[in-house]
Amino acid sequence: MSALLVTGIGELVTCDPTLGDGSPLGVLTDATLVIENGRVSWVGPAGAAPAADVRVDLGGRAVVPGFVDSHAHLVFAGDRSREFEARAGGARYDGGGIAGTVAATRAATDEWLRARLRGFVAEMRAQGTTTVEVKSGYGLTVVDEARSLRIAREVTPETTFLGAHVVPQGTDRRGYVDLVTGPMLAACAPHARWVDVFCEPASPHAFDADESREVLLAGAAAGLGLRVHGNQLAEGPGVRLGVELGAASVDHCTHLSAADVEALAGGSTVATLLPGVEFSTRSPYPDGGALVAAGVTVALATDCNPGTSFTSSMPFVIALAVREMRLTPAQALWAATAGGAMALRRTDVGHLGVGARADLAVLDAPSYRHLAYRPGVPLARALDLPDPRV
Amino acid sequence: MSALLVTGIGELVTCDPTLGDGSPLGVLTDATLVIENGRVSWVGPAGAAPAADVRVDLGGRAVVPGFVDSHAHLVFAGDRSREFEARAGGARYDGGGIAGTVAATRAATDEWLRARLRGFVAEMRAQGTTTVEVKSGYGLTVVDEARSLRIAREVTPETTFLGAHVVPQGTDRRGYVDLVTGPMLAACAPHARWVDVFCEPASPHAFDADESREVLLAGAAAGLGLRVHGNQLAEGPGVRLGVELGAASVDHCTHLSAADVEALAGGSTVATLLPGVEFSTRSPYPDGGALVAAGVTVALATDCNPGTSFTSSMPFVIALAVREMRLTPAQALWAATAGGAMALRRTDVGHLGVGARADLAVLDAPSYRHLAYRPGVPLARALDLPDPRV
Repeated sequence: MSALLVTGIGELVTCDPTLGDGSPLGVLTDATLVIENGRVSWVGPAGAAPAADVRVDLGGRAVVPGFVDSHAHLVFAGDRSREFEARAGGARYDGGGIAGTVAATRAATDEWLRARLRGFVAEMRAQGTTTVEVKSGYGLTVVDEARSLRIAREVTPETTFLGAHVVPQGTDRRGYVDLVTGPMLAACAPHARWVDVFCEPASPHAFDADESREVLLAGAAAGLGLRVHGNQLAEGPGVRLGVELGAASVDHCTHLSAADVEALAGGSTVATLLPGVEFSTRSPYPDGGALVAAGVTVALATDCNPGTSFTSSMPFVIALAVREMRLTPAQALWAATAGGAMALRRTDVGHLGVGARADLAVLDAPSYRHLAYRPGVPLARALDLPDPRV
Repeated sequence: MSALLVTGIGELVTCDPTLGDGSPLGVLTDATLVIENGRVSWVGPAGAAPAADVRVDLGGRAVVPGFVDSHAHLVFAGDRSREFEARAGGARYDGGGIAGTVAATRAATDEWLRARLRGFVAEMRAQGTTTVEVKSGYGLTVVDEARSLRIAREVTPETTFLGAHVVPQGTDRRGYVDLVTGPMLAACAPHARWVDVFCEPASPHAFDADESREVLLAGAAAGLGLRVHGNQLAEGPGVRLGVELGAASVDHCTHLSAADVEALAGGSTVATLLPGVEFSTRSPYPDGGALVAAGVTVALATDCNPGTSFTSSMPFVIALAVREMRLTPAQALWAATAGGAMALRRTDVGHLGVGARADLAVLDAPSYRHLAYRPGVPLARALDLPDPRV
């Protein structure tokens, strides 16, 4: 197996605090990185690197770990730009618009859903994302949820069963929870790593604390890890339920009580913030800086979906988190890489220490700071390795 | 001369109200456009188009007029990402940081400034911008202002003399105004179409109403059109001075009094909003929707510069204007195209009616609405015509 030497890295963010400047970002300047067998095998100063068979010179560009987008809904059909336009004019989001996406998704062919999903994954990779989680949740029948996850599994191991996204229109709540925790879970678990639930008593379409607990415990019994959509529309039980059950992450966290923050700081559950949702739904932003200061582990993700956050751009999410959530540029980048990896309980991605997957995002910029300093500009791309066998 | 037929346009925004749906955006669905001699020669429904020598099929994508970015500072050296980082942590912007960029710009070679400028223009074009205004203002000596404009003129006819950007450090105010209105103007006017001034009594670095009037009148006497940076940091005289003197545009308009809005609505001066500045300086956003409702002509621009808005992305500016300035997606697109053209007093750009320059922005999306609906995603690019002679 050949070794690939990546040189000309003006600034290398490793997210390995044992490297470089010793900060959480582990920053080296004028660095070199060696890749063997798809993994980082050496990191250090330019000039001290071992010999290698192939060289890539990045001309002084910055390199950061490929973004880990730990929350995305990418298996769907339809378009909700008119709903977006109405919301821009003042309409509020309550979760009800999901029904339109569900109808379109059920009507679409596998081939169509697969092509669109692959289009989104390519779009994300072109913006520096190298790991993405993909949820079901627009099928809401046994057959449609299972096929969504089967298709998602073709592009990522991070697949999440979200049959409990909303109660489908015209469906009995109790019966639907029984379906989700019974036959639907049985059909979906083989294709999923995670189970998730939209725990939001404030929405008539979502699930309350007891229903959410049922869904999560059933998923856990089927061998799935736990995730929660919680505290998006109002304070509620989602965060504390997630922490109590040892969920990997509670996502949204838009409305948190002091008890929620305390629970997150004392547990192993990551708070995944989704600023694209607040942007697109005209909602208030949670104070991410205060969460970090309280000792909470924070991740950032896109929540890419057609209703409430149709962005696939992790750089945009980073810039928003700095502007609106009071994260520093360094905290935001960490949350979008190492934080996302923790939200997925992965140790092989989200950093570029020795042994990590060779998932590099290259920036057309001298420093990671430019991700927030140059908002909206497509600076990041995933590095395509010259030989997939190295 | 050959004709080029552009087909497969799923949605065509012409910004010509005599076309399509008759709205200000003049939208046609399933449209065709013919280009001859670099101009639009025919617009209409697919199937009815005349014969042509060359065809480009856009596969159902939306087409909008290339963005007109009427406010940018692209001739400079240096990096202010550390200042940005400090501001993200709570520091305020008062215009003082410009001094660092001035020192770096003076020290740079022509070749270096030219290469960087061309890099920005290419970056903008890759995001759908086809007309850009470029200001001087980081030289602040006769020689350095003139060379900035000479270099800028190589890439755009829309060059603006902004010797009155700030009073240089260690310089006598009165003497500097005399320099700007005398020898500096004489050296710069041959390379400039416009004169501009940072009229902001709230900043110790900028110019008051009397100084600003002097600068503008001297520029007008030298044959230049008028533009004003005004009302960025606080309410002040900038807007009313601009309207009184018939300036093409007053830019920023962050802090407006009722009298300012009334003056703008009653005059021929465009209000150019720069939401990237409010984003990057953590300032309040002006209410663009209220300006439109009051009858003011609104444009949107990036203000791309290393201190207060280092974005080159008109789609990002559109998304911000919808989220934060209460423009509708349609109003924001109009302001970024037709509005920008009015701010530059150009009738050949900013629309795609017959006779317009063939400046097309193609979207990887079915509708212009996606520019705001998919924030941060690089959907737009300027269409490179297959033969530059058509």
